[in-house]
Amino acid sequence: MANTFGRLFKVTTFGESHGVALGCVIDGCPAGLYLDEEIIQALLDRRKPGQNLFTTERAESDKCEIISGTENSVTLGTPITIIIRNQDKKPRDYSQLENIFRPGHADYTTKIKYGLTSKSGGGRASARETVGRVAASAVAKAYLQSIFPAINVMAWVQRISNINAHVNHSDLIIENIEKSEIRCPDSNASELMKRAILSAKEQGDSLGGVIRCVASSVPTGIGEPVFDKLEAELAKAMLSIPASKSFEIGNGLDATYLMGSENNDPFYINNEGKILTKSNRSGGIQGGISNGMPIEFSVGFKPISTIYKEQETVTKQNPTEIKFSIPQGRHDPCVLPRAVPIVEAMCWLVLADQFMLQNFREIYDKHHFK
Amino acid sequence: MANTFGRLFKVTTFGESHGVALGCVIDGCPAGLYLDEEIIQALLDRRKPGQNLFTTERAESDKCEIISGTENSVTLGTPITIIIRNQDKKPRDYSQLENIFRPGHADYTTKIKYGLTSKSGGGRASARETVGRVAASAVAKAYLQSIFPAINVMAWVQRISNINAHVNHSDLIIENIEKSEIRCPDSNASELMKRAILSAKEQGDSLGGVIRCVASSVPTGIGEPVFDKLEAELAKAMLSIPASKSFEIGNGLDATYLMGSENNDPFYINNEGKILTKSNRSGGIQGGISNGMPIEFSVGFKPISTIYKEQETVTKQNPTEIKFSIPQGRHDPCVLPRAVPIVEAMCWLVLADQFMLQNFREIYDKHHFK
Amino acid sequence: MANTFGRLFKVTTFGESHGVALGCVIDGCPAGLYLDEEIIQALLDRRKPGQNLFTTERAESDKCEIISGTENSVTLGTPITIIIRNQDKKPRDYSQLENIFRPGHADYTTKIKYGLTSKSGGGRASARETVGRVAASAVAKAYLQSIFPAINVMAWVQRISNINAHVNHSDLIIENIEKSEIRCPDSNASELMKRAILSAKEQGDSLGGVIRCVASSVPTGIGEPVFDKLEAELAKAMLSIPASKSFEIGNGLDATYLMGSENNDPFYINNEGKILTKSNRSGGIQGGISNGMPIEFSVGFKPISTIYKEQETVTKQNPTEIKFSIPQGRHDPCVLPRAVPIVEAMCWLVLADQFMLQNFREIYDKHHFK
Amino acid sequence: MANTFGRLFKVTTFGESHGVALGCVIDGCPAGLYLDEEIIQALLDRRKPGQNLFTTERAESDKCEIISGTENSVTLGTPITIIIRNQDKKPRDYSQLENIFRPGHADYTTKIKYGLTSKSGGGRASARETVGRVAASAVAKAYLQSIFPAINVMAWVQRISNINAHVNHSDLIIENIEKSEIRCPDSNASELMKRAILSAKEQGDSLGGVIRCVASSVPTGIGEPVFDKLEAELAKAMLSIPASKSFEIGNGLDATYLMGSENNDPFYINNEGKILTKSNRSGGIQGGISNGMPIEFSVGFKPISTIYKEQETVTKQNPTEIKFSIPQGRHDPCVLPRAVPIVEAMCWLVLADQFMLQNFREIYDKHHFK
Repeated sequence: MANTFGRLFKVTTFGESHGVALGCVIDGCPAGLYLDEEIIQALLDRRKPGQNLFTTERAESDKCEIISGTENSVTLGTPITIIIRNQDKKPRDYSQLENIFRPGHADYTTKIKYGLTSKSGGGRASARETVGRVAASAVAKAYLQSIFPAINVMAWVQRISNINAHVNHSDLIIENIEKSEIRCPDSNASELMKRAILSAKEQGDSLGGVIRCVASSVPTGIGEPVFDKLEAELAKAMLSIPASKSFEIGNGLDATYLMGSENNDPFYINNEGKILTKSNRSGGIQGGISNGMPIEFSVGFKPISTIYKEQETVTKQNPTEIKFSIPQGRHDPCVLPRAVPIVEAMCWLVLADQFMLQNFREIYDKHHFK
Repeated sequence: MANTFGRLFKVTTFGESHGVALGCVIDGCPAGLYLDEEIIQALLDRRKPGQNLFTTERAESDKCEIISGTENSVTLGTPITIIIRNQDKKPRDYSQLENIFRPGHADYTTKIKYGLTSKSGGGRASARETVGRVAASAVAKAYLQSIFPAINVMAWVQRISNINAHVNHSDLIIENIEKSEIRCPDSNASELMKRAILSAKEQGDSLGGVIRCVASSVPTGIGEPVFDKLEAELAKAMLSIPASKSFEIGNGLDATYLMGSENNDPFYINNEGKILTKSNRSGGIQGGISNGMPIEFSVGFKPISTIYKEQETVTKQNPTEIKFSIPQGRHDPCVLPRAVPIVEAMCWLVLADQFMLQNFREIYDKHHFK
Repeated sequence: MANTFGRLFKVTTFGESHGVALGCVIDGCPAGLYLDEEIIQALLDRRKPGQNLFTTERAESDKCEIISGTENSVTLGTPITIIIRNQDKKPRDYSQLENIFRPGHADYTTKIKYGLTSKSGGGRASARETVGRVAASAVAKAYLQSIFPAINVMAWVQRISNINAHVNHSDLIIENIEKSEIRCPDSNASELMKRAILSAKEQGDSLGGVIRCVASSVPTGIGEPVFDKLEAELAKAMLSIPASKSFEIGNGLDATYLMGSENNDPFYINNEGKILTKSNRSGGIQGGISNGMPIEFSVGFKPISTIYKEQETVTKQNPTEIKFSIPQGRHDPCVLPRAVPIVEAMCWLVLADQFMLQNFREIYDKHHFK
Repeated sequence: MANTFGRLFKVTTFGESHGVALGCVIDGCPAGLYLDEEIIQALLDRRKPGQNLFTTERAESDKCEIISGTENSVTLGTPITIIIRNQDKKPRDYSQLENIFRPGHADYTTKIKYGLTSKSGGGRASARETVGRVAASAVAKAYLQSIFPAINVMAWVQRISNINAHVNHSDLIIENIEKSEIRCPDSNASELMKRAILSAKEQGDSLGGVIRCVASSVPTGIGEPVFDKLEAELAKAMLSIPASKSFEIGNGLDATYLMGSENNDPFYINNEGKILTKSNRSGGIQGGISNGMPIEFSVGFKPISTIYKEQETVTKQNPTEIKFSIPQGRHDPCVLPRAVPIVEAMCWLVLADQFMLQNFREIYDKHHFK
């Protein structure tokens, strides 16, 4: 297993879906940063289950406790440990699924790899695992915003199935995203998406789609060529989220249909004398390094695998082909609304780590070139 | 910079486009493997420039030399160092570009990050950097095939601009890919693509597209959840290739339009009693772990940024907006044909490393469960 | 900060001396291992304070709780998190020391590095930090002993100040060590040492000494040349323990006085046809790799810095030279008896990690050479 | 194998004693540093064989070539690759040793671990491996001295067998060390040591001893508690050097005989208002972090294992106990004089890496606290 993300801003997450607790340890956050449970809870609340009709009914308040790394709400430079105890675990709900490999789930591959599976639910393969990522991202965000007050990361639901939102990035504000129960800032599209999700839910089925994310006011110069280019780190971070299927940087697949003369972003000098690009098809990254324009990318999510229709599969013991169906239970019919804060979380973790990796060089320049 | 890939099968690449030499060090390859320069040269020859009308005319034989790690063509378990000396470097070709930030290139971000840029060409930001990756992949391939003789990785040009190939994966053989000068196994599409590329070349412009890749006979159980899921590692590997824009695992973005009941891959038992899935929309990976089906993914590439039309940009010294155009030079009008062996190379590196990470556990099972 | 040890068997520790809790996350332990709190508690009890006259009076039961990574006392292959809540923290005890840099302590360097110090006690610089290491070592030990039932690590107090124990390694058993309150198996020396410690304690002073450690039945072939030689990893592990001053492998400094002909260990073949060495001056390691003989090493510890005599130092605010003395408090007059399980713990962590690093190669040999 | 040292200033070494070439790749050195082959050669010349009567007669000029990472003698921020081709390799000299496990050497453990051994000499287990370390240290030194012009690392032979040098640290200058052919600055001791070495050489035997090293003008605040304390990193670095047996930080083992009141270093304020310690028994490190005093440590080396007297051992094929002796050949009778630049090299590598790890935090303080 690989439960640590980052090289200088290092986050280790832990915990099973139906175990005692989940959480994270953040090693590498500087000392002197204001941090309390409220700051973390604000992000956890956006991810928590049971928010509305469109999310699972599992009732978890997801209350966090900081058990190390701060004193009087100030970070000590030591590892910050945050735990979230499970409250509404119902391992028994899974007893009838114990002997089958659920299609699209990690049951089969987990059994192959580890020789056993968590008896109750997906263990670490459950999307509940991401609670530790979101908790950690609150620290990454607080850290970066203490240095760059304007830096921000904002994601939204861009498409559900074939319903695409029309979003003007320059108008985009968090309030417009959050006022939609499914986090789509285009209110017309939002209504259509909600209907589509409820319809799928009624059929015992699920829907996929695309989340778009923009990181703004990101400092220039972050990203580590050759192998740890900024877009490469983002791609890895996003594809590590359960149910994700694709990653596109900037205009992504659209670029593959253009000619070079249509796709290149011309440089210009703005009123403040800063060098920028007229368009941002590259998504704010060139040669793996941030260029000062907004970092933009898309993440595709499949329709989640837990559905309530009859399916074919194979049993674990004495492998036999069977048909089965799951009784209506506690799962999101569409993962995207709650995946929005998770995409943002992974983006914060990438930015914090890449910023630190770049940072130590600046000192050198300061001493050396002047 | 981050020039090392992998944690147990570790590859460090080095070298500038117009420097003395490029190459790689492979640390972690077991002892006792047969390896000579011919094995490496075979893969380098597929990547080398000057192959035909569709590639750059830079004349590099890309001859490799193994300078450590083997004795009598057998690996010693020590670091394997391979160097490729530059032969046809023409740093002076770049003198007229020295004072501008080329649109779409890494000139600007490299200057911001490192305070200086390689005077001649893109330095490490040039696609020439990938020669070290391909050399290393020959070792990864030899290693994996010595254990799993049937394991293979095969990529091809699936789409150029809007010309899509029709490819039946089950019929796919390397000869059909290589007989096309642009590595598209659909001969009709290949002809159309070639015409499109030559037409773009005549216009001084460039084209993008999509490469599809399949890794077959991959052992089950590789991939390291949570953060180093197999698809996450592949996504990072692919987005680290110059000019790449997108990554899709399995049916990728197509999945986002389906319902869960349409997208799940049902498990079944084949004639040999092996558990497989009837469809392979997941691309051979579930929960971040290989399931024994072929690993399939797509990588999108932008039209390369070097074009010969007039463009707008900003100068490096005394930043000023200017228009400029590059005289016809030595660049591929479409990067995809030569990117095919690079995509394969990165896939081999991921598989070798992930296989090693999984491997040590098996011993445990052997001792412990029996 | 760097709170993670190991590359495949990875242990991250966290927690401050006077914070909410301390503990560890173990990432990389295989699935299927029996593990409960009792196994961990047994080792923690050997390290805990308040055991007898020779240790600090701080009353901590050091009760551990496993909050992730197991189900029904079996490991899942997921991160194992263990927490130990602080019970007898008395941050106020430290209020009078708040404004001084204690000689020999990390107060000054922590302030320089992090800009602030934990108000109460040494934070992570306190020896209380090692509780997470000992908890983690219980898992490493259980893992290794599940594969190699005979493998063992045993440390003891070899010398206190100038009182040296006479210990015949071949007779050494854990009972003889534990029956001494200060963990010295030579009962005569043990009595002299106890008197010396109590005498130092009465004077408000402290004593140092040397711990010797032997790891027996260690598999051959572990250790990673060039930089991660087994003795190099042990040296790092031991010098990371608070108050440690020296590391010697095998006969250590004694070797520096010998000639090559006196120091080389001749190979021979034992009755079972196994190749061993007649002497073990190398300490079971050659070229950084274990040779099947016992791994033996010594670790020197300074007299701890907390003493109750008047000392000179400098104040933190408005730096001024002052004299000060600490009122009798809760500190060990000699750290060695409680450092014995800590030395063993770090040895277990090194062995588990190095064993895993070697293990993945064996598969290759199996497939390849046969 | 683990051939990479460091996390931000990363050095990978490669090459066998009797292969084509040895060398290193340095990844992480900032751009803009002046670097040419002369700077590297100066350090290599101190380590090279054949310097005088006291070193091996193998004739290697150890000429280095930089093949990547610089342009016009300025670093580009890209990986710096340095190669040194072997000139005087005589693999045939080893043919008669091919079938035996030499006592004290890595032949046996290498065979166990890797299944084979380099036919000629020790491969990577030879001390010739360290040439890459010394080359890399020239870059680390140039980097650190470009920021801190006064920073320096100086090692010398402190003791050979039982002949101890009297060295006043404050008078110590490089000229006094280098004027001694065996790098002992106490001229009386140097003469005695030389006689002892020649006498051992005549007998076909070898001698060990201790090297002392001081790093001065090191910035405060470097070192990464908990596990990567500065002394822990130094201990690992030193114990990774072939033939090393012990590491002591500061007064080392002497501390274990003192009482706390004798061993603590009192803080005081010097004339410039800087906080220092009156004594430096801690060796410039407290709590794993540098305190601004000189970093001082000792490294013990065994008498090397290659001797020309009859020894007992076991054959590789059809293992049988035999007696053998090696004909007079090309080995140092005492490794210490040439180990002096190697100890310094590893110290430079540790300091460069630890400095970078600390550095990124300073930016934060600058932005945050003001």
